Amino acid sequence: MPLIVQKYGGTSVGSAERIQAVAAKVQQSRDAGHQVVVVVSAMSGETDRLLGLAHAIQVQPSPRELDVLLATGEQVTIALLAMALEAAGCPARSYTGAQVQVRTDNAHNKARITDIDGARVQADLDAGRVVIVAGFQGIDEDGNITTLGRGGSDTSAVAMAAALKADECQIYTDVDGVYTTDPRIEPKARRLPRITFEEMLEMASLGSKVLQIRAVEFAGKYHVPLRVLSSFQAGEGTLITFEEDDVEEAKIAGIAFAKDEAKLTILGVPDQPGVAYKILGPISEGNIEVDMIVQNIAPDAQTTDFTFTVHRNDYAKALSLLQETAEALSAREVHGDEHIVKVSLVGVGMRSHAGIASRMFEALAREGINIRMISTSEIKISVVIDEKYLELGVRALHDAFDLAQSS
Amino acid sequence: MPLIVQKYGGTSVGSAERIQAVAAKVQQSRDAGHQVVVVVSAMSGETDRLLGLAHAIQVQPSPRELDVLLATGEQVTIALLAMALEAAGCPARSYTGAQVQVRTDNAHNKARITDIDGARVQADLDAGRVVIVAGFQGIDEDGNITTLGRGGSDTSAVAMAAALKADECQIYTDVDGVYTTDPRIEPKARRLPRITFEEMLEMASLGSKVLQIRAVEFAGKYHVPLRVLSSFQAGEGTLITFEEDDVEEAKIAGIAFAKDEAKLTILGVPDQPGVAYKILGPISEGNIEVDMIVQNIAPDAQTTDFTFTVHRNDYAKALSLLQETAEALSAREVHGDEHIVKVSLVGVGMRSHAGIASRMFEALAREGINIRMISTSEIKISVVIDEKYLELGVRALHDAFDLAQSS
Repeated sequence: MPLIVQKYGGTSVGSAERIQAVAAKVQQSRDAGHQVVVVVSAMSGETDRLLGLAHAIQVQPSPRELDVLLATGEQVTIALLAMALEAAGCPARSYTGAQVQVRTDNAHNKARITDIDGARVQADLDAGRVVIVAGFQGIDEDGNITTLGRGGSDTSAVAMAAALKADECQIYTDVDGVYTTDPRIEPKARRLPRITFEEMLEMASLGSKVLQIRAVEFAGKYHVPLRVLSSFQAGEGTLITFEEDDVEEAKIAGIAFAKDEAKLTILGVPDQPGVAYKILGPISEGNIEVDMIVQNIAPDAQTTDFTFTVHRNDYAKALSLLQETAEALSAREVHGDEHIVKVSLVGVGMRSHAGIASRMFEALAREGINIRMISTSEIKISVVIDEKYLELGVRALHDAFDLAQSS
Repeated sequence: MPLIVQKYGGTSVGSAERIQAVAAKVQQSRDAGHQVVVVVSAMSGETDRLLGLAHAIQVQPSPRELDVLLATGEQVTIALLAMALEAAGCPARSYTGAQVQVRTDNAHNKARITDIDGARVQADLDAGRVVIVAGFQGIDEDGNITTLGRGGSDTSAVAMAAALKADECQIYTDVDGVYTTDPRIEPKARRLPRITFEEMLEMASLGSKVLQIRAVEFAGKYHVPLRVLSSFQAGEGTLITFEEDDVEEAKIAGIAFAKDEAKLTILGVPDQPGVAYKILGPISEGNIEVDMIVQNIAPDAQTTDFTFTVHRNDYAKALSLLQETAEALSAREVHGDEHIVKVSLVGVGMRSHAGIASRMFEALAREGINIRMISTSEIKISVVIDEKYLELGVRALHDAFDLAQSS
């Protein structure tokens, strides 16, 4: 009997009615002959309510105690969903992360799952029950409650699917699949019936918030077939596959973008070994994550220019750190720009097809869009452009690569 | 170093401010040189909120899942109290019932504690931390979450005190101790500095809702010194002692009453062996609890009259069951009265002092109060009287036994 793990997010379980709707979906799968494990998030709004309580008491709540508090959110949902299933005549049993031994490291508020014991869940499935597991939470080796951080329920579902060797892990969300790009920007964007794990990883890391990136990594590592579907409409969603041959012939899967970027440049740094470390060391010590990095040697060959991007929230702090560094290194000057975005073309087809990059640059040039930075990987080309060109650039690329047509 | 277990109920932890006030009280005890374990209830209103969610989904929620749901209430409080203590510079750690292995039977919604492993808590205490434990909850031997039923947090605190061999278990509540009777009825009622366990048990079972009766039984069984205090005002409260000699010389500790009683009588039952069982069997099969029972032989000595009391909520059901029984037994008739109350005099002094009963009956007679039923135990005399005489009767007895004066 095929075993399916389904994950429903906070919006999907946001009220008694929605929980009953989820119960109906779960029963459909069961009636179709599947064993079903359901992983759920806290009801939408609940985590914020709990955070509000915590912040009324402590500005920076103790991470351990915050996890004890937040873990109650999912525990409420599992009980309610079990009741909804039983009310509909479907035997069900709910478990907290601790009860099914979702083991994590002890990094409170952002723990990583190390192990799950599927035996208890399997026993319930074999007894004909639907099993409901609280997402987002686990226990460390001392039995302390941990949480995986926001969105961690996706990872919980994938880890559970891996532990049970499930046939599919279905992530129900408020979109009906992965699109060639954000339909709010390009109305011609098309749902992809399939996408490879590598492409999905790139899309996710670039701001396509359909799936938590750690969940995709986990699924890739343990070869869990993953499907993204809508909680609210019927449809096949998007299957994330391991087999590139399965994927349609398109060279390009889609266009991702990251809006909240900022760019910093340090110019005329006397070139010497270790200069990159001297520039980025203080940034990373300031807990700022750096995304793209580009280094050029200046025409005089004595100095170097160095550019990198950070999240826009970190811009002011990064700029002030960089100015200190510039003084220490006797650099000529520091520039910054917080009105830039990153647009990326993603596709495993890129590997075997030359000319993708030039076609991308040409499409942007035709619209008069200046490229500020370029960075490439095996299956992705990213460019930094001025913020005002975001929509124009995305649409131009969507057209240039014929993404509206199923190829 | 003396070890104190403190229990704070829902009203005491009903808001962020109140939780901070509890933290301050806990710190005072710690500063006074005590090791402190705190047992807390859900914030007031929280259990009803959760029940509302459950009932929106299932009219009669599954008992197992209801426990999973309700247990989140205390889990929220433990985390918030730990934060409040840490914010005030006091090291603290919170635990759910499951985490400190509060073992219960598997009677969901009304489980009984069978065992607590105090090792983990003791280790934290020895490391200088305040330990906060979720009341009202535990796990059965299969690791399912159980709850003890409303008010069960008192029992959790006493059981924890027993497991840790605590020097005292302090129950903080919204009254400042045990009174000679309800001050809302007799303004001259006086707080008792001490009371024996037996007296406390009788007072509790008779509607003095200061402490959950099971908690008192548990404390008696494991010889845990128990003290009732107010969360909101300073004071010594009432200490519940094992030593009768400790108790002040008064013959009578206090006057308890139960308002919501009803009385049923079956008259002219042909007397035969087993008649009591034939009358009460159907009542108890109907899940109705019977309180007082009185049986008389009628003057003809051929038939018997049989009277018992039940909770007023069960009156209609009990009456209809009794009418069926009357027909089956060919009894003459059935009477019922749902406007009666039970008033009881409680005191260990009764054992060694004759004349208490007659003094009680005299005091009531002087006010023209008719006694409908009488039942006695070693340390208690209960009478059933008409509902309208409740206040008058309580005050008459309070006066007759000089309870307003500390004797």
